[in-house]
Amino acid sequence: MKIGLIGSAGVAQTLGRKLVELGHDVVLGTRDPKNLDEKKTMAGSLREWLEAVQHKAKVATFQAAAAHGDILVNATHGQSSLAALELAGADKVGAKVLIDAANELDFSQGMPPAVLAAHDRCLAEDIQRAFPNLKVVKAFNMVAAPVMVDPKSLGGGDHSFLICGNDAGAKAQVTDLLKSFGWSDIIDLGDISAARGLEAYLALWIRLWGKLQTPMLNIKIVR
Amino acid sequence: MKIGLIGSAGVAQTLGRKLVELGHDVVLGTRDPKNLDEKKTMAGSLREWLEAVQHKAKVATFQAAAAHGDILVNATHGQSSLAALELAGADKVGAKVLIDAANELDFSQGMPPAVLAAHDRCLAEDIQRAFPNLKVVKAFNMVAAPVMVDPKSLGGGDHSFLICGNDAGAKAQVTDLLKSFGWSDIIDLGDISAARGLEAYLALWIRLWGKLQTPMLNIKIVR
Repeated sequence: MKIGLIGSAGVAQTLGRKLVELGHDVVLGTRDPKNLDEKKTMAGSLREWLEAVQHKAKVATFQAAAAHGDILVNATHGQSSLAALELAGADKVGAKVLIDAANELDFSQGMPPAVLAAHDRCLAEDIQRAFPNLKVVKAFNMVAAPVMVDPKSLGGGDHSFLICGNDAGAKAQVTDLLKSFGWSDIIDLGDISAARGLEAYLALWIRLWGKLQTPMLNIKIVR
Repeated sequence: MKIGLIGSAGVAQTLGRKLVELGHDVVLGTRDPKNLDEKKTMAGSLREWLEAVQHKAKVATFQAAAAHGDILVNATHGQSSLAALELAGADKVGAKVLIDAANELDFSQGMPPAVLAAHDRCLAEDIQRAFPNLKVVKAFNMVAAPVMVDPKSLGGGDHSFLICGNDAGAKAQVTDLLKSFGWSDIIDLGDISAARGLEAYLALWIRLWGKLQTPMLNIKIVR
């Protein structure tokens, strides 16, 4: 599958590496693709990443990544996502699936960060509204990057993965991808407004991270 | 133990019944204790409740319940909690433990309700600020009443219970109470500001309820 990653920090690099391992055709989009040596948040440089994936993927502009992918992934910081998707020309790529993995975390007032998802709006809804051509599926935002691509590394994989979005076909495609990553308990919470719940959960997640002193955690929905 | 319940709907009645079963001395406080026949939200009337507990507990005013308990429980609707605690004279009862089990859910715009906890405030913090004499411990707000008092009824009890609050001694007392209810994985998330996480989680919980078509659900923190 052709996959275009919008973003170049830890989440993009981790997802990208896993997707390359699974044989997908990946383009990682970054603001300045000529600057391969800058160290990225929670990850190394893109030059190191290209070496890690044995140059089986490309680093390009946001726009080239968005044009390349049949499935796109928003792996930017939530507060930059709309601007990055505009730079990517996401309004001009047609009816593509966009996996929104981002969270809006405001670190400006110190730790723990404020989670900006609210009772009447969230990032995934804002993206769906700004880019009605895209089929937005919220996914991946509830776990740290190493857990996203290796659920079995935590509790033997016995925990849950929540998704939502307006398009059933898009959610089916994302579900297939998740299964190929090793996820089994994938729960579809409905339309994109359910992303308010997925994003609001971060307010609990950051406290759990603080308490457990590791982001290697997730929830199992017991029912 | 002497326990004063502030509130008379499903959560108060369910917790009260369990506490009576465990031998505690319970007073359930309600706005109008003479009106025993009104059907309460998610529960029967207080006359039925008194019969169910074989009259081993009392129904009284908010104020009498607050004066009675060594431990108090806020089991009101979140949007009425501050007013109820004022009516209860909670500012005049000294340094008592208050378990805050409430959530601020706004049903005025239809279903699902809006969760009013935000990145910069939540109910438990408002209560702690308004009643600095109380030792507020957030607990019980993340599960439906039947799960609160019978964790083993769900997934064999293999799920988690989160608490927070500023006073270590108060949290130890609440933890003992929780263990007597059958809870084992009790996680203390820190000071009362962590209640923003416990309350924000409701935005996810209400979506899970909608999806699973039952409130008999909880999360296990897998780490």
